[in-house]
Amino acid sequence: MSNRTLIRGGLVLTAADETHADVLVEDGRVAALAAHGSTAAGSWTADRTIDATGKYVIPGGVDAHTHMELPFGGTFASDTFETGTRAAAWGGTTTIVDFAVQTRGRNLREGLDVWYAKADGNCAVDYGFHMILSDVNESSLKEMDLLVEEGVTSFKLFMAYPGVFYSDDGQILRAMQRGTANGGLIMMHAENGIAIDVLVEQALARGETDPRYHGEVRKVLLEAEATHRAVQLARVAGAPLYVVHVSAEEAVAELAAARDKGLPVFGETCPQYLFLSTDNLAEPDFEGAKYVCSTPLRPKEHQAALWRGLRTDDLQVVSTDHCPFCFSGQKDLGRGDFSKIPNGLPGVENRMDLLHQAVLDGHISRRRWIEIACAAPARMFGLYPKKGTIAPGADADIVVYDPHVEQVLSAETHHMNVDYSAYEGKRITGRVETVLSRGELVVDRREFVGRAGHGVFTPRSTCQYLN
Amino acid sequence: MSNRTLIRGGLVLTAADETHADVLVEDGRVAALAAHGSTAAGSWTADRTIDATGKYVIPGGVDAHTHMELPFGGTFASDTFETGTRAAAWGGTTTIVDFAVQTRGRNLREGLDVWYAKADGNCAVDYGFHMILSDVNESSLKEMDLLVEEGVTSFKLFMAYPGVFYSDDGQILRAMQRGTANGGLIMMHAENGIAIDVLVEQALARGETDPRYHGEVRKVLLEAEATHRAVQLARVAGAPLYVVHVSAEEAVAELAAARDKGLPVFGETCPQYLFLSTDNLAEPDFEGAKYVCSTPLRPKEHQAALWRGLRTDDLQVVSTDHCPFCFSGQKDLGRGDFSKIPNGLPGVENRMDLLHQAVLDGHISRRRWIEIACAAPARMFGLYPKKGTIAPGADADIVVYDPHVEQVLSAETHHMNVDYSAYEGKRITGRVETVLSRGELVVDRREFVGRAGHGVFTPRSTCQYLN
Amino acid sequence: MSNRTLIRGGLVLTAADETHADVLVEDGRVAALAAHGSTAAGSWTADRTIDATGKYVIPGGVDAHTHMELPFGGTFASDTFETGTRAAAWGGTTTIVDFAVQTRGRNLREGLDVWYAKADGNCAVDYGFHMILSDVNESSLKEMDLLVEEGVTSFKLFMAYPGVFYSDDGQILRAMQRGTANGGLIMMHAENGIAIDVLVEQALARGETDPRYHGEVRKVLLEAEATHRAVQLARVAGAPLYVVHVSAEEAVAELAAARDKGLPVFGETCPQYLFLSTDNLAEPDFEGAKYVCSTPLRPKEHQAALWRGLRTDDLQVVSTDHCPFCFSGQKDLGRGDFSKIPNGLPGVENRMDLLHQAVLDGHISRRRWIEIACAAPARMFGLYPKKGTIAPGADADIVVYDPHVEQVLSAETHHMNVDYSAYEGKRITGRVETVLSRGELVVDRREFVGRAGHGVFTPRSTCQYLN
Amino acid sequence: MSNRTLIRGGLVLTAADETHADVLVEDGRVAALAAHGSTAAGSWTADRTIDATGKYVIPGGVDAHTHMELPFGGTFASDTFETGTRAAAWGGTTTIVDFAVQTRGRNLREGLDVWYAKADGNCAVDYGFHMILSDVNESSLKEMDLLVEEGVTSFKLFMAYPGVFYSDDGQILRAMQRGTANGGLIMMHAENGIAIDVLVEQALARGETDPRYHGEVRKVLLEAEATHRAVQLARVAGAPLYVVHVSAEEAVAELAAARDKGLPVFGETCPQYLFLSTDNLAEPDFEGAKYVCSTPLRPKEHQAALWRGLRTDDLQVVSTDHCPFCFSGQKDLGRGDFSKIPNGLPGVENRMDLLHQAVLDGHISRRRWIEIACAAPARMFGLYPKKGTIAPGADADIVVYDPHVEQVLSAETHHMNVDYSAYEGKRITGRVETVLSRGELVVDRREFVGRAGHGVFTPRSTCQYLN
Repeated sequence: MSNRTLIRGGLVLTAADETHADVLVEDGRVAALAAHGSTAAGSWTADRTIDATGKYVIPGGVDAHTHMELPFGGTFASDTFETGTRAAAWGGTTTIVDFAVQTRGRNLREGLDVWYAKADGNCAVDYGFHMILSDVNESSLKEMDLLVEEGVTSFKLFMAYPGVFYSDDGQILRAMQRGTANGGLIMMHAENGIAIDVLVEQALARGETDPRYHGEVRKVLLEAEATHRAVQLARVAGAPLYVVHVSAEEAVAELAAARDKGLPVFGETCPQYLFLSTDNLAEPDFEGAKYVCSTPLRPKEHQAALWRGLRTDDLQVVSTDHCPFCFSGQKDLGRGDFSKIPNGLPGVENRMDLLHQAVLDGHISRRRWIEIACAAPARMFGLYPKKGTIAPGADADIVVYDPHVEQVLSAETHHMNVDYSAYEGKRITGRVETVLSRGELVVDRREFVGRAGHGVFTPRSTCQYLN
Repeated sequence: MSNRTLIRGGLVLTAADETHADVLVEDGRVAALAAHGSTAAGSWTADRTIDATGKYVIPGGVDAHTHMELPFGGTFASDTFETGTRAAAWGGTTTIVDFAVQTRGRNLREGLDVWYAKADGNCAVDYGFHMILSDVNESSLKEMDLLVEEGVTSFKLFMAYPGVFYSDDGQILRAMQRGTANGGLIMMHAENGIAIDVLVEQALARGETDPRYHGEVRKVLLEAEATHRAVQLARVAGAPLYVVHVSAEEAVAELAAARDKGLPVFGETCPQYLFLSTDNLAEPDFEGAKYVCSTPLRPKEHQAALWRGLRTDDLQVVSTDHCPFCFSGQKDLGRGDFSKIPNGLPGVENRMDLLHQAVLDGHISRRRWIEIACAAPARMFGLYPKKGTIAPGADADIVVYDPHVEQVLSAETHHMNVDYSAYEGKRITGRVETVLSRGELVVDRREFVGRAGHGVFTPRSTCQYLN
Repeated sequence: MSNRTLIRGGLVLTAADETHADVLVEDGRVAALAAHGSTAAGSWTADRTIDATGKYVIPGGVDAHTHMELPFGGTFASDTFETGTRAAAWGGTTTIVDFAVQTRGRNLREGLDVWYAKADGNCAVDYGFHMILSDVNESSLKEMDLLVEEGVTSFKLFMAYPGVFYSDDGQILRAMQRGTANGGLIMMHAENGIAIDVLVEQALARGETDPRYHGEVRKVLLEAEATHRAVQLARVAGAPLYVVHVSAEEAVAELAAARDKGLPVFGETCPQYLFLSTDNLAEPDFEGAKYVCSTPLRPKEHQAALWRGLRTDDLQVVSTDHCPFCFSGQKDLGRGDFSKIPNGLPGVENRMDLLHQAVLDGHISRRRWIEIACAAPARMFGLYPKKGTIAPGADADIVVYDPHVEQVLSAETHHMNVDYSAYEGKRITGRVETVLSRGELVVDRREFVGRAGHGVFTPRSTCQYLN
Repeated sequence: MSNRTLIRGGLVLTAADETHADVLVEDGRVAALAAHGSTAAGSWTADRTIDATGKYVIPGGVDAHTHMELPFGGTFASDTFETGTRAAAWGGTTTIVDFAVQTRGRNLREGLDVWYAKADGNCAVDYGFHMILSDVNESSLKEMDLLVEEGVTSFKLFMAYPGVFYSDDGQILRAMQRGTANGGLIMMHAENGIAIDVLVEQALARGETDPRYHGEVRKVLLEAEATHRAVQLARVAGAPLYVVHVSAEEAVAELAAARDKGLPVFGETCPQYLFLSTDNLAEPDFEGAKYVCSTPLRPKEHQAALWRGLRTDDLQVVSTDHCPFCFSGQKDLGRGDFSKIPNGLPGVENRMDLLHQAVLDGHISRRRWIEIACAAPARMFGLYPKKGTIAPGADADIVVYDPHVEQVLSAETHHMNVDYSAYEGKRITGRVETVLSRGELVVDRREFVGRAGHGVFTPRSTCQYLN
């Protein structure tokens, strides 16, 4: 007989609806929703009943941009799939999509297999993979087709990082054309890295080595430029486009202009761009290094444009770009040369909470919270409605969220494997209480009860915004 | 014991989701949804079971713009609330929001009471009212507050029709300010009627009396101008704005520009602008009169912009502006003078079908069909989730829709009380099969089983897009 | 034999060129220019020789927007044609175009004749007239044709001042259409006066009576709105458009957008918008009243957009809108009610100097100075090349300008008949030294040697930007 | 004693003025202008008098973009400096600015010296040089400073032609920064050559070898993209930008957007984009090869945008990009492979006439003709007022132009050293009659009386639009 869990009395929030309903889970999936107090609801029995009275019942978060164990600048991102997915669960995220990396000169298969191996048996929640294309050529283009069939349906290209991940415009065009044919979605790191590298060299030559120069050389105009260029290349290829970690008002404007034309262009931003700024990069005593990531943090004025973009749907997704490096021993590598600071911030555990705070701050509605954090990333990357919503048939990835509790973000209490919090001391309202992944408890009333290996690789269909 | 209906085996479509689920109706409301084949679904029993296998199960349509029995140009719109709501039901629409009219020099109360009386006891499906403000002054401004409390939460103003419905910019500003205070939403007929009347007079003086001149004098630029002006006045008032029957590409561009700024500006278009054009207005032998409405039909090229606007969410709602006048005896009034042709088209019965055809034609997705025809109008006008979706707790206004049947639109077969169809002979795929209103059958497998008086006045909360 | 004046050794500045040339004047007109030191120049003799070594030799200024003796709000602008044109000459302006006013219910002829009479025999420099249309109707439309033939080729309409000068959009459209036919240029006061009057009433009702509220109720958005509307109406009429006293960044944006489309749309701004701001309107003790004019002064941030518009040629002309009212006895009328303060500022004497200062401040080039102050207004209003340049055949309206002398603007030293200066105490570099009008000395080395009656009515051809 | 030429009775046209004046030339320069019939004019005597009654007297044309003897694709442009400048003179052009070429791996000096040698002693009219930077590096950046001092003040970079002239964005940024410092103006060939090369390869692989595919692969979007990118890089560098041979509406839009912001961004188009189209590229029997140039000819619809851009001053200059290759023996190289067709068209002789025809066609005014063909290129490239106008002190580069004569353009009658005309058979009105270069006759009433070696290298100051 089936395993049944019943979540009673909560307010079920999805991207579309706010429903006073009980949720019945059977065998890891949502079987039914029934109005509180209805005869139907009244007749239900279950093995386990969770009382969600006064709480939100929300879909588990989908973080479509993480980098567990990423090798970067001679070190590795400090969260493994085990620590990182555990932290994700603590933060109410039940699916991550991480980036497998093609090494230059090697094929995609090889890179993907490394990532399968890293994740396999280690994850507390489900995961999928995007593939980073570091070397677009005839052979890797052909491999793309196979990956799409295998459920790795999105491919990241870099207009930044010449000599490392960088693809030139011809490679980008070819990859986009291939994506048009096989359904793969191109994700773009949109910064003009060729120009930026000139500015980096010039800044260092002037003795500008502090972390804050990282923000100055990676200019807003060069993010906007690359965004515009990516859109035009996508138009030539007849391809959709997803721009990752949009940070600048001018880049949002490029996306808005493209979307006004009806083009299938999408944009993601991250909590760090919404809540942090160049003020953080300028923190003294090298503390600014904690906030070094690319695209970089921007002056505070850009935040309003990002929030507006999230409201107007010119930005669709908030991911974390979670890529933690410890302040001691890792960020250190860039003392005296900002260009050597490993790029990345921890965040996978904080996203759902920070965005709930944004609801309270009036930036977005409750439904939009669920949309940008759960439903839209799931749709964007072919996981919907399995992930990202609470509906009959969906995976029972469900979070009981207490919207009233206060908490203070801190490295002392977080579960990410990194020695600092980008939001140290920030006081917010709302907290994850209980987390189910495919019907199994992972966090039970603020106690971790999950296990490495519960989470499984989840093949994805192609982008669901294109029909 | 409760009255239960069970709809089995269909694909439940909402604005957000496509779910293979059985729907359980108790006492006029949706009690629960359960995945096909789940234990929960299997345990359900009901008084009546509807087999929806191979069909869509969709929310009943919400037509937020109808004019039953409207007095206009010395005659009355030919559909009464009885005939009009019956036709609506036949077409899968289970809620209309009609326009009560303030007579110049009289108060709102009086006008509204006339409309209550017209509708009461006559409607096959539920209805609400907007109020047309023909005379904005201190007294009518105060009355607005009362109407909002009474559930009449939206107010239409006209920048066209000087001497009839026209409000000047000062009146518009005052009404918008009042709306900002009391939550009422201003709906705008955005055409520069003062300028248009000059062009009408000049055209008639040149002997240009044919219906097609109706389209020529009501210029695209004068719709765009008024749209821009309404937006600016709304900004001054700090008010949201809903522009009715948007027909021109340039007007859509004004809305898009406003929305890119994050302004709470909304737009509606109608099937006639999406499927008909000035070619129809130019039909010989006065046949063009059938297509006379304001804003007017536009050259075909505008259609692409309207579809794009619906996809990009720069337009949110498709209503009908249903306002039928018989070709014989009514449209006739304008022979020899296009300005005397009663303005309006029949359409309340055709909307859901035409928009389903648009799905098949690739203009919009299935979910977007439900959004623009059901969910968005419900949210816009404070009826959600009671109307506009299928979710636990919602009114059981449900349509079983057969997406495969072909039909031919025609005055011979339609149920609207008007002697012509604007879409005569148009062949489309998809048809309403069964309609429930609050759980009661209104149309049962293509047989009308409803009754005048089943439909009730439905008070509305304020616009739900503003939180 | 002819009367010859020779201006030697100066740098001749026109809108197009900077030429080291001697200028030979014969019989009131420029006969020739010859390079300094050329054989041709060396051979010239003259009755009078002016040494311009180290000075600029520039065309006399053309101020296309003045209101001498204008009746307004129960009083009259304090400069007569005699005092006003004398002050103009002192400031290097040798042509004004003043506004004759049609009284409501009266015809154009009558109004124009009043203005002819006011100016005749009183002016120190040449003058032309625009006509203010206060009452657009069949009769006044016909009169427009006659005025164009008579050399009064431009007509001002008001979207502001309901009940006084206001024209509705139908009247505007008709006047524009007539202008399209007869060549007359429509000049527009672009503010939504209907909406503004509501805000005025509301402000006064709240007890907001100080001059600074004049700036608050006349909102930027309502200037931008009216500008946009005027452009659209002009497009419908196929007419060119000249927008007077543009003060807001958003209005400049409307003009720029129109001009990018290639539309014949033009804009004027005034020194007060370039050099003053709402800070002045907020001066205590009712001093703000000195700066009350409409369109109103704007927050300082708008100035950058105006300068940019002048550089990008989205604004073409700088006029003064000279309309002085004494602080004592006139501005006083609005104590306790800002809406009763006579609207207007003195400026006809200051324009050339302030714009030269703008050259020194880096806002515009020397040639652009001459263009916006002399050549462009002359071309715009059909006076070129008679006025506005120094070229063989042009009227010898010439100013010898010393670019190095410092002066301090002050009511104590200015020649305008008004008891305050809007720029009191402002220190600027550059000063008019000698002024010729049609070859006759009006100011000779800082001594006024002109006479009332030298200046004559100058009929104008139609706008010269339209071929 | 001085050598004097007197041009009597003509209408002197400059960019600014139309003056009925006699022109006196002394010692190769314009000494004076005097009104027809003035005492001053009447007193003049001269060695040679040219009767220009009924004719225009215009500044000699300045063609700022020619490629005499350019090595390209294994052959050389077919006009030498001798034949090319002679043809220029026939067409009323008295100054060319040709492009010296840096060879990859070699320094600028060497390339420039080659061009000095090619031109020296061979030219019928004056000439200057731009420098093509094929290899931006520390050494060539330093050389830029020296060239600016030497009067070679503009530097062309290519975003197209990878492996040949192509610079990457870092090189572009560095060159722009250097230009900001030394005053050099960056001229940009704005096409995304990296992406285009992919499309070329794909087209050829599909067997699309005909000349018309040249137009298809070099996509409008890729010109617009590169234009946008160049603007953004210029903003980062704080540099002005001059975009050569703009051909697409979308590229004009990028320039207009930049200029609306007040950025010092300039654009050039060429007669071929104004008068020819992809229809020509599609001419059968390989005739399309005659029209192969890059940027390519565009569909006819783009012409309207180019004319509008010239009217709105979003485009400032019309040059020819004269780069002729004979149909037989040169264009032939690309039979069977459009990518091997030498890129370029003849035109140096036709520019002034074609643009005069545009005056008659109503596209531009007479003054604008002179501006875009004479004055603006002279100002842009530091030659004004020596070149580009008729004013005291200017070089006496003067054309007597008969605006009434008809002619038919043809290879049979033209003087360019190429076996076809891009405008074969085109009938136009207007023709050069007499040409002076620095006061010496080059063409005398349709007879060539010039000589190789009259024309001299003319050092240029920096761009004159930047003060």
